[in-house]
Amino acid sequence: MLVVMKADATSGDVDRVQEKIRLLGLVPHKIPGAERVAIGITGNRGGLDPDLFQSMTGVLEAVRVSKPFKLVSREVKPDDSVIQCGTASIGGPELAVIAGPCSVESRQQIIETAEMLAETGVRFLRGGAFKPRTSPYAFQGLKEQGLEYLREAADRTGMKVVTEVKDTESLPEVLAASDILQVGARNMFNFSLLERLGDERKPVLLKRSFAATIEEWLMAAEYLASRGNYEIILCERGIRTFEPSTRNTLDLNAVPLLKKLSHLPVLVDPSHGTGRWDLVIPMAQAAVVAGADGLMIEVHLDPASALSDGYQSLRPETFRTLMARLHDLVPFVKRRMPVAAVGA
Amino acid sequence: MLVVMKADATSGDVDRVQEKIRLLGLVPHKIPGAERVAIGITGNRGGLDPDLFQSMTGVLEAVRVSKPFKLVSREVKPDDSVIQCGTASIGGPELAVIAGPCSVESRQQIIETAEMLAETGVRFLRGGAFKPRTSPYAFQGLKEQGLEYLREAADRTGMKVVTEVKDTESLPEVLAASDILQVGARNMFNFSLLERLGDERKPVLLKRSFAATIEEWLMAAEYLASRGNYEIILCERGIRTFEPSTRNTLDLNAVPLLKKLSHLPVLVDPSHGTGRWDLVIPMAQAAVVAGADGLMIEVHLDPASALSDGYQSLRPETFRTLMARLHDLVPFVKRRMPVAAVGA
Amino acid sequence: MLVVMKADATSGDVDRVQEKIRLLGLVPHKIPGAERVAIGITGNRGGLDPDLFQSMTGVLEAVRVSKPFKLVSREVKPDDSVIQCGTASIGGPELAVIAGPCSVESRQQIIETAEMLAETGVRFLRGGAFKPRTSPYAFQGLKEQGLEYLREAADRTGMKVVTEVKDTESLPEVLAASDILQVGARNMFNFSLLERLGDERKPVLLKRSFAATIEEWLMAAEYLASRGNYEIILCERGIRTFEPSTRNTLDLNAVPLLKKLSHLPVLVDPSHGTGRWDLVIPMAQAAVVAGADGLMIEVHLDPASALSDGYQSLRPETFRTLMARLHDLVPFVKRRMPVAAVGA
Amino acid sequence: MLVVMKADATSGDVDRVQEKIRLLGLVPHKIPGAERVAIGITGNRGGLDPDLFQSMTGVLEAVRVSKPFKLVSREVKPDDSVIQCGTASIGGPELAVIAGPCSVESRQQIIETAEMLAETGVRFLRGGAFKPRTSPYAFQGLKEQGLEYLREAADRTGMKVVTEVKDTESLPEVLAASDILQVGARNMFNFSLLERLGDERKPVLLKRSFAATIEEWLMAAEYLASRGNYEIILCERGIRTFEPSTRNTLDLNAVPLLKKLSHLPVLVDPSHGTGRWDLVIPMAQAAVVAGADGLMIEVHLDPASALSDGYQSLRPETFRTLMARLHDLVPFVKRRMPVAAVGA
Repeated sequence: MLVVMKADATSGDVDRVQEKIRLLGLVPHKIPGAERVAIGITGNRGGLDPDLFQSMTGVLEAVRVSKPFKLVSREVKPDDSVIQCGTASIGGPELAVIAGPCSVESRQQIIETAEMLAETGVRFLRGGAFKPRTSPYAFQGLKEQGLEYLREAADRTGMKVVTEVKDTESLPEVLAASDILQVGARNMFNFSLLERLGDERKPVLLKRSFAATIEEWLMAAEYLASRGNYEIILCERGIRTFEPSTRNTLDLNAVPLLKKLSHLPVLVDPSHGTGRWDLVIPMAQAAVVAGADGLMIEVHLDPASALSDGYQSLRPETFRTLMARLHDLVPFVKRRMPVAAVGA
Repeated sequence: MLVVMKADATSGDVDRVQEKIRLLGLVPHKIPGAERVAIGITGNRGGLDPDLFQSMTGVLEAVRVSKPFKLVSREVKPDDSVIQCGTASIGGPELAVIAGPCSVESRQQIIETAEMLAETGVRFLRGGAFKPRTSPYAFQGLKEQGLEYLREAADRTGMKVVTEVKDTESLPEVLAASDILQVGARNMFNFSLLERLGDERKPVLLKRSFAATIEEWLMAAEYLASRGNYEIILCERGIRTFEPSTRNTLDLNAVPLLKKLSHLPVLVDPSHGTGRWDLVIPMAQAAVVAGADGLMIEVHLDPASALSDGYQSLRPETFRTLMARLHDLVPFVKRRMPVAAVGA
Repeated sequence: MLVVMKADATSGDVDRVQEKIRLLGLVPHKIPGAERVAIGITGNRGGLDPDLFQSMTGVLEAVRVSKPFKLVSREVKPDDSVIQCGTASIGGPELAVIAGPCSVESRQQIIETAEMLAETGVRFLRGGAFKPRTSPYAFQGLKEQGLEYLREAADRTGMKVVTEVKDTESLPEVLAASDILQVGARNMFNFSLLERLGDERKPVLLKRSFAATIEEWLMAAEYLASRGNYEIILCERGIRTFEPSTRNTLDLNAVPLLKKLSHLPVLVDPSHGTGRWDLVIPMAQAAVVAGADGLMIEVHLDPASALSDGYQSLRPETFRTLMARLHDLVPFVKRRMPVAAVGA
Repeated sequence: MLVVMKADATSGDVDRVQEKIRLLGLVPHKIPGAERVAIGITGNRGGLDPDLFQSMTGVLEAVRVSKPFKLVSREVKPDDSVIQCGTASIGGPELAVIAGPCSVESRQQIIETAEMLAETGVRFLRGGAFKPRTSPYAFQGLKEQGLEYLREAADRTGMKVVTEVKDTESLPEVLAASDILQVGARNMFNFSLLERLGDERKPVLLKRSFAATIEEWLMAAEYLASRGNYEIILCERGIRTFEPSTRNTLDLNAVPLLKKLSHLPVLVDPSHGTGRWDLVIPMAQAAVVAGADGLMIEVHLDPASALSDGYQSLRPETFRTLMARLHDLVPFVKRRMPVAAVGA
């Protein structure tokens, strides 16, 4: 159930609706929009009678929501959500570009990478410090040390930090060092972690599990929203299919479909979505004109020596080519390229 | 094995190489290129010794080909193949757009559709006359009558006909009425049909089976080429995955990958690839910037009344919007839009 | 629509119902059962009014059929279909075992194999003469010569021949030489071939496409039945999934599900379903207790030298072990093992 | 690397090998076997020289292990692992049957269920207390209260408790109340949870993720073993495929394949693997003859009123039918049925 308020409803009107919802033993979720406020209701098992709200002052209408996801649905909030990170943003007119190495490998590596990226205008620095790896014997990341290097590199270059939070144990450190918390594909179904992140008030970049349907993915986002964290960014990174020649099958159908179903921003990660650096540029371009709000790209100064995912990482010169290509492409989708903050 | 001739090799040199191949009980395939001729060799089970050819006059080198597909591989022919159809072409600088209804339903329908499409510059008219349908009780197409209407509509508007050839029985009629023979996804593994089409000298548009790996698809193309028909156009139309919200998962990764592996032109069909008309425009755009040589689009004057696939067909006004969008997009990929032939 | 006749309905009653169906421009399909006759109706697009038949003499009831498949459905014919082949049968109390090499490779090979198999009681000899192969350069079978050897081997040992019909061109020869026509996985969606086989009156073994849903598979069977050929045997042989360690994923869920949905006999091919000879025995056992009516097993006298599919073929001694295991297992499912015909 | 000791090696010999491994900065894993001890070595990135150990007293041989998983591989430990739980066991001659409701719903429900199950001889009681659910609005389990009821029900009937551990937060309570810790399919890639459970000395039942390859699944088991917890039980529960008519595709190929690759016991859950109660009996039977060491079955006193997964739960009478069927089947695989402990 969703209670849509009139454009001229007062904050008192909104409060009274929320109060009534609580009286019914349910949970109100105020969803501010550009034109009007809506209030999502969760906690109800069966149907709720729209008449309970329809006659209240300031209420435009009370509507049943037909999808299993509510708070993240476009039905509930028709205008796009924009996630603000200082002067940078995701979901607005600026194309969001998150770039960096798969793993933070050394202080020097991440600082040099950040400087190179900042010069091209990139505003979000990625790098794994706590790495979930298929093998217990594989490199698991530099952990706290990696976070520290990442933060330093971002601060020196005026960038924002995006890094994966692998578990609730390391959450406090990741929270302290990062600007956006990434939930990796293997954790999309980790509902306990999602609940914990739903209690934070920091943006979450939620990658699609390689085996999740779009509906399950939106339900994972709903876990976050239902606890009050609406700062959610979706990131498509390829699904698992029978095709062996690419690491994953990048599902770009998901991009325009999500833009219809949900108000959340949608990014695309062509590095994981293809698993091959030589497919990254065309698929990044494709993602942008399919409607993506931005990209997540793996870049490594020397891919051959990378401790993880080297084969899918772009070299600096190839990344600069990509940025130049995107520069020419974004006017087509009425977006603009990011420009590094002054003095960054 | 591939014998690459020097740029200045004479036709006598080429003949002598072909003769030697035949003497070994194998089959030579002359592959003309912009700069030089190459000769593919098929029929050999085990390894063939490059020395057999390397010392012959006019031979640059004899190389083993590492992929199971040979004649369709980029290794064998480095420059792009362009399929010429009168003044129209597929694989060249002009973006190829094939459009029309899923099925030819009546004379009036296909003529009106063709006129509308020709006005937008479309040069290839599609329409199913012999329809493979999952149910024996579903509409199977107007058959010969449908072909006749299709030919008439194309001729009135100066367009070329692309239509599916469902089996060898109906091949003579389809051959007579069409300019490009389409092999549907369900027939990609129908090797007997492929062999038969390999003996023709008419272009074949080979759709990817929804369960074919990219390698299997190229092997199907190799069936055509190995019989001497090199006029092959590949068309990605979505693969079968666990995702239920789209009819298929359009695998755009395939586009840049195919452009690396093969010299054949690659089209994308976002109508089948998504199964939803409202995803067609963004995915068509994505296909173009991913490197596709063209698009195959279902268009219906009145989708709600279509006898098949109405939900994925564009209305005329939406199709015109798509063409206008593409017009703005093609300079980015150094292509130009098609323009209807004068007097068409 | 299905018209179910009373147990004591006369043949005149049945004729009158069929006549009325024809008068309505539709096609009646008489489906004899152990207790009563039913008449399927095909050709109707929209709903048909049950009242049209309900008041006719001898009619028990006229029911709408909810599935897209009709004639092959259990709703239409509640008792199991048994396909009779001389004294051998598929779908009855005797477990059907079809065995033999992937390809007929020589006269001696197939005769020796047949003799070995006949000694173990096997009644159906398989062997490919016309082979659909992914590569145009791979061994395509001995063709007519292979059929001849196969027929001779079967006749000498009193066995029945099961062999693949690859296309309509080779159908006359395959029809002449075989007792059961196999439609391979790659041809399950070849509707023209299915229609042609639907006009024959010889049993068809219909393998599941590795990308077909169970419903699509039953629709392919419906193609056969709708033309009057009810002698259909389904054969599960594995579907294509993301799992790389087996060639296919054998879908045994399909076995009990098909037995609920359809009256047709169901076989399982664990050789293709696993792609590994060392998994064949356990999966063959599993298929039998899941309810399969029989098995299709690849056996080769010398797998290492096989021209195709050697890795998934059982050696004679392993096949004998399998038969001994099945001998102990079949009482559990109230079946008996096949015994070679006297004098075979 | 694996160091295999001679059958007559002394414990001093074993100690010296372990000491040398530690001196090299690596971790030794002593793996006791029926005949001899082996010592797995982990922590080495590159190759290790077998000569380092081959000349030591008591060493039979030092062998490189070719699979990415080591400690759970059959290469490292040729004889089957048996997990002992009081007098009950998993992996030995007794077929292990774990049964119970999807969720613990009330004290009365679980006690009545346990009593019914104990009467049939079942020795392991399952029931979800902490439930991972796709929707944040769905029933999430009775949590601590549920664990308490489950423990009481098991203790009254002499059964062992198997219940899911959803996260590290609830681990202490789940540890206290259960005998076997279940890792659900959605947590198989939750490496932090696996590491935590690897530090416990309680058996872990590790379900396969619906998107995990068999190798990834064994790597998840390796996470547990690499921390010293070798008490691991694998449980196949179906993978995600394109087939919509069953909730999952039960991959029984995995059973014999795992028995080749690994020494760990393998269970099968046909309730989740099919998602339909009416397919559970045939698929349970199939699992047993494919070589499974046991079954995990959902049973509900009144499926229609279940708070979760009712459609796939067996009623008591159907479950008793299953147990009677298994009773007749187990001699075929040289196993015996479980018998409830005396006085239970």
